[in-house]
Amino acid sequence: MPHSPSRRRTPLGEFQLIEALHRRYGKTGPNVIQGIGDDAAVVTPVKNHEMVLTTDLLVEGVHFDLKTASFADIGYKAAVANLSDIAAMGAKPHYLLVSLAIPRAQSASEMQRLYRGVMSACRPYGVELIGGDTSASRHGLFLNIVLIGSVPVGCALTRGGAQTGDLLYLTGTIGDSLAGLRLLSARHGNKGSVLPSVKRSAQELTRRHLRPTPRLEMGQALSTQRLATSAIDVSDGLSGDVRHICMQSHVGVEIELDALPISFALRKFAGMKKLDPIDVALQGGEDYELLFTVAPRSCKKVEQLGRKVDCRLSCIGIIKPVSDGLRIKDQSGMLHPLPMRSYQHFSTAHNLHREKSWSR
Amino acid sequence: MPHSPSRRRTPLGEFQLIEALHRRYGKTGPNVIQGIGDDAAVVTPVKNHEMVLTTDLLVEGVHFDLKTASFADIGYKAAVANLSDIAAMGAKPHYLLVSLAIPRAQSASEMQRLYRGVMSACRPYGVELIGGDTSASRHGLFLNIVLIGSVPVGCALTRGGAQTGDLLYLTGTIGDSLAGLRLLSARHGNKGSVLPSVKRSAQELTRRHLRPTPRLEMGQALSTQRLATSAIDVSDGLSGDVRHICMQSHVGVEIELDALPISFALRKFAGMKKLDPIDVALQGGEDYELLFTVAPRSCKKVEQLGRKVDCRLSCIGIIKPVSDGLRIKDQSGMLHPLPMRSYQHFSTAHNLHREKSWSR
Repeated sequence: MPHSPSRRRTPLGEFQLIEALHRRYGKTGPNVIQGIGDDAAVVTPVKNHEMVLTTDLLVEGVHFDLKTASFADIGYKAAVANLSDIAAMGAKPHYLLVSLAIPRAQSASEMQRLYRGVMSACRPYGVELIGGDTSASRHGLFLNIVLIGSVPVGCALTRGGAQTGDLLYLTGTIGDSLAGLRLLSARHGNKGSVLPSVKRSAQELTRRHLRPTPRLEMGQALSTQRLATSAIDVSDGLSGDVRHICMQSHVGVEIELDALPISFALRKFAGMKKLDPIDVALQGGEDYELLFTVAPRSCKKVEQLGRKVDCRLSCIGIIKPVSDGLRIKDQSGMLHPLPMRSYQHFSTAHNLHREKSWSR
Repeated sequence: MPHSPSRRRTPLGEFQLIEALHRRYGKTGPNVIQGIGDDAAVVTPVKNHEMVLTTDLLVEGVHFDLKTASFADIGYKAAVANLSDIAAMGAKPHYLLVSLAIPRAQSASEMQRLYRGVMSACRPYGVELIGGDTSASRHGLFLNIVLIGSVPVGCALTRGGAQTGDLLYLTGTIGDSLAGLRLLSARHGNKGSVLPSVKRSAQELTRRHLRPTPRLEMGQALSTQRLATSAIDVSDGLSGDVRHICMQSHVGVEIELDALPISFALRKFAGMKKLDPIDVALQGGEDYELLFTVAPRSCKKVEQLGRKVDCRLSCIGIIKPVSDGLRIKDQSGMLHPLPMRSYQHFSTAHNLHREKSWSR
């Protein structure tokens, strides 16, 4: 039920929170027939488009930590996680439902900051809040976001379309978000102070962790111009996410280690922490970059597109027959099996030091 | 993201759970372009229809208690809460997203029972599971359901259309669910044993609490035949829910105490517990009956419809000008202000005895 007062009483006054949300976000466009405040929301679907729906449930202590992120950060990032899923389908986002289970300790203004974070991520893309639910929680904050988008009929990008010979592309750089989280956790625990010489890099990495960018423009261009054969967003980490494409497309892959796009900031961080930046890049999740496959005939167009929308693109590998498996080629041309490790949210960040590196 | 493996690892093996869900519920109709297992689900919208979207977040210890309900019961009821919201909009349900935050103590088979409960409520209406999310939880089970339906353009029933002079109707009977919960809680606490003479009534009341019926057929007929001017489902309790209609339609109401539909089972329960059944009926929530308003010229048709779809209908009051406020007429013809009390889920059930009765 989209934000209907008094269904469940939270200590901070559900009714007042919903009233405030309605005042702030209740004004919606002509396609929203009924927004916040009824049994359900009613919207007009986009003509000649399919509907795209995604949901993410974020749990305090599992996906976020109030010690290292503000309420606005949590809202922002939760929205981006969903916007990025919509981007990976090549779709355009339209509507948002937000459900919150709120512990007694949280205040109404904290929850409003969380909504402000959500909406500041969504508003640049014209996404409208049309409903949700609020409840009390006995332990910890729970946040569920639903995002509804659309894609022209037949254009949706799935994980299942990669073909042998396709090239594997990646937007932006990877590993930055995990490095940013490491910095935030260390700063909270007073375990490390950032040297002035790496301050700008540290700021860049923490920004990448707390305020990632969903690759919506790129995703939509790839789908509507039919340039990609498959796509996924890098949320679990490259190792895990490329595996999803391979499994669902029944193909293998060969990734070029040297081609992995690693930011200057991450190199600096890795140098300081005596880590291999490649390790961080392969393990790190929550970068929300797009990983997609392109038939060789479309590569030129894809690279032109990258320049047009000002999005760094790297060709990081090639799709192989399924019998070849998932492999990575090191600097000397040696092929290794792709490590299994996937990002397991902030809880694993602390283990990064202790884990054995496959590439060393 | 609809049930995508390995994004978050739960102790019971998220990957295996999603695999099992995919095997069991992955076969979907031609309108589901992409179901479980990608970044988002993709569906074809219904032609000449608006989309209806609702979500409910259910929290262990707030909305359900594992001591008085099985996992299948919890899933079933969570689905009905959403189906009922769709019914209250006069819409037809189509698709379902289920998000779960699962504590370490829960097993995969328990979660599968929960899904079975959800799907056994949904399947009679042809609703298909197209995605969701799963996560670990540090404390307690959290369940978020999203239901997507459709309604012919311009036909959605909202809370905002009631007019002075309209008659107020209610399907079925109310108060049964709260009485059922009382019985379940007492049975768990060994505070009371059910006398053999009231056993059948007790069974009926607990069934009404654990396995309520969404009034989908009635809701759809009311909207497509344009018979109702406004509608809501009785989830908070009659007192609270009629208030929502009055607030959003800017009207008052006069409810006839004698007209409130009370089941034989509830009368028997109330007699045994020395409660006023009217009190239970006004306070009790989660009956998932439809409360709706009808213009006088349509009343005959509505009553014919009730007989046709075999749904008990009671005319319980009349819509008044907003200046009259919200009132209830007792057996002697005296008008009283409608009590404010709303149902606050299972936590208040225990207070029912201690609360003062307005009607005595």
